[in-house]
Amino acid sequence: MDLWFSEKQTNNVKFSIRVDKQLYSGQSEFQRIDVFESPEFGKFLTLDGYMMFTEKDEFIYHEMITHIPMAVHPHVENILVIGAGDGGVVRELTRYEEIKRIDLVEIDEMVVEVCKEYFPHTACGLEDERVHIFYEDGLKFIRRCKEEYDLIIVDSTDPFGPGEGLFTREFYGNCYKALKEDGIMVNQHESPFYEEDALACQRAHRNITESFPISRIYQAHIPTYPSGHWLFGFASKKYHPLRDLDEKRWNERGIKTHYYTTTLHKGAFYLPAYVEELLKDVEK
Amino acid sequence: MDLWFSEKQTNNVKFSIRVDKQLYSGQSEFQRIDVFESPEFGKFLTLDGYMMFTEKDEFIYHEMITHIPMAVHPHVENILVIGAGDGGVVRELTRYEEIKRIDLVEIDEMVVEVCKEYFPHTACGLEDERVHIFYEDGLKFIRRCKEEYDLIIVDSTDPFGPGEGLFTREFYGNCYKALKEDGIMVNQHESPFYEEDALACQRAHRNITESFPISRIYQAHIPTYPSGHWLFGFASKKYHPLRDLDEKRWNERGIKTHYYTTTLHKGAFYLPAYVEELLKDVEK
Repeated sequence: MDLWFSEKQTNNVKFSIRVDKQLYSGQSEFQRIDVFESPEFGKFLTLDGYMMFTEKDEFIYHEMITHIPMAVHPHVENILVIGAGDGGVVRELTRYEEIKRIDLVEIDEMVVEVCKEYFPHTACGLEDERVHIFYEDGLKFIRRCKEEYDLIIVDSTDPFGPGEGLFTREFYGNCYKALKEDGIMVNQHESPFYEEDALACQRAHRNITESFPISRIYQAHIPTYPSGHWLFGFASKKYHPLRDLDEKRWNERGIKTHYYTTTLHKGAFYLPAYVEELLKDVEK
Repeated sequence: MDLWFSEKQTNNVKFSIRVDKQLYSGQSEFQRIDVFESPEFGKFLTLDGYMMFTEKDEFIYHEMITHIPMAVHPHVENILVIGAGDGGVVRELTRYEEIKRIDLVEIDEMVVEVCKEYFPHTACGLEDERVHIFYEDGLKFIRRCKEEYDLIIVDSTDPFGPGEGLFTREFYGNCYKALKEDGIMVNQHESPFYEEDALACQRAHRNITESFPISRIYQAHIPTYPSGHWLFGFASKKYHPLRDLDEKRWNERGIKTHYYTTTLHKGAFYLPAYVEELLKDVEK
């Protein structure tokens, strides 16, 4: 059997993974959902044919989108997570005892059901009693919120198609409003390398910069995402991602990670020259 | 025309680039050499079917393998470069006025000729009068050298096939001998992500650690290399890659870069937890 899943990362670049077998294929109200088993990456989930995560490298994305803000904000109790029906973000968050409530807003209930069945290691966090799942459009949910959250994590799909609204000025403005006076918002921010992705990056950064006084970008190596060079946005009302990093406090928690460390935290914000330039163009 | 170049990054992962046309194909005494034109990456060179560099992202590799040691060592005059027949490493080095001599040892003259014809932007540095090219096996060349160089850059192919000898304990021992008392050796060090590459990484790191008192690893995002997460080795007799970094001195030179900055320099040494663990296992 010679079976390959391929994703066109651009019209001219293709990333392919050998597949042992397809474990699931379904169509929800919103998108096509597939699960595959592969020798290199273990199981992986795709939405509308785009790679969402693999068992082998999901830890990188999920650690970097959660532990960075958690190591900066001194006292996080209430969190809103938008997207992330796979449970990976929530799994990392439930490792913090001080967190009291996690509201998870996922538009597609079928994603949650599929992940619970095929990715128990990722979805396990969803069972935590602090987690409240709302099957709703994040765009609408956020409009009702006011000064409720210490942290908002936007774990969206790409800014093309269903996830598009989660990259707009209106949405980021509503996130600002939904955060307490010292709140932080973190979002997945695409890649700076391929032209179309880089433009999406710039647009998102411009929109965030208009709402938040502190807006910085950080990076990680995620092999199954286009170019492997992935960015995250750190937007904040008060705390600076480096000056307010408290390494001692975070390390005393004893949380075991495979990618994140408080040393790597700092390096993640030291961007290549061409990325700095890309972002500077929209900061003016 | 639907023409694709594919590289199997492992037996189970394939990276493919759309090709406009093949510009060159030849067989040297050592390897098959091909040049392609692509819409996404411009022209690119392959050796025995493996991606060596593309016009679009070669700047990342070449800046990171040269400017890191140049920003640490206070006074580099004599340099040995092994491999690197494409001229990219030499191009970056020729931007430093204080460098007096660059010996380039490339086993395959045909690589140099092909790069001069198809990659003038990369090969341009080879015309500098400080550059002396030796068409020889680097393994043999290095045996004759003693305390001659301030810096050795090992720009090898992978540790499988012809480049294998450039990852051995004997070779690194000879590099140590060829360096002056405060010399630095930098080498390309593979990727930590896929299992076979990670093992090669560990072996190389173990072998370097046995010869050099200071041996550290740093990373860069290189989209066309397997996993996009690429490592370099920094081995040194005296200077520490972070404690002896002189940001002011380097920035005063006014060298314009697209990836390297002296801030990024520091972050490049802050490795993910799983890479730290991979390396620690062989440091004992």
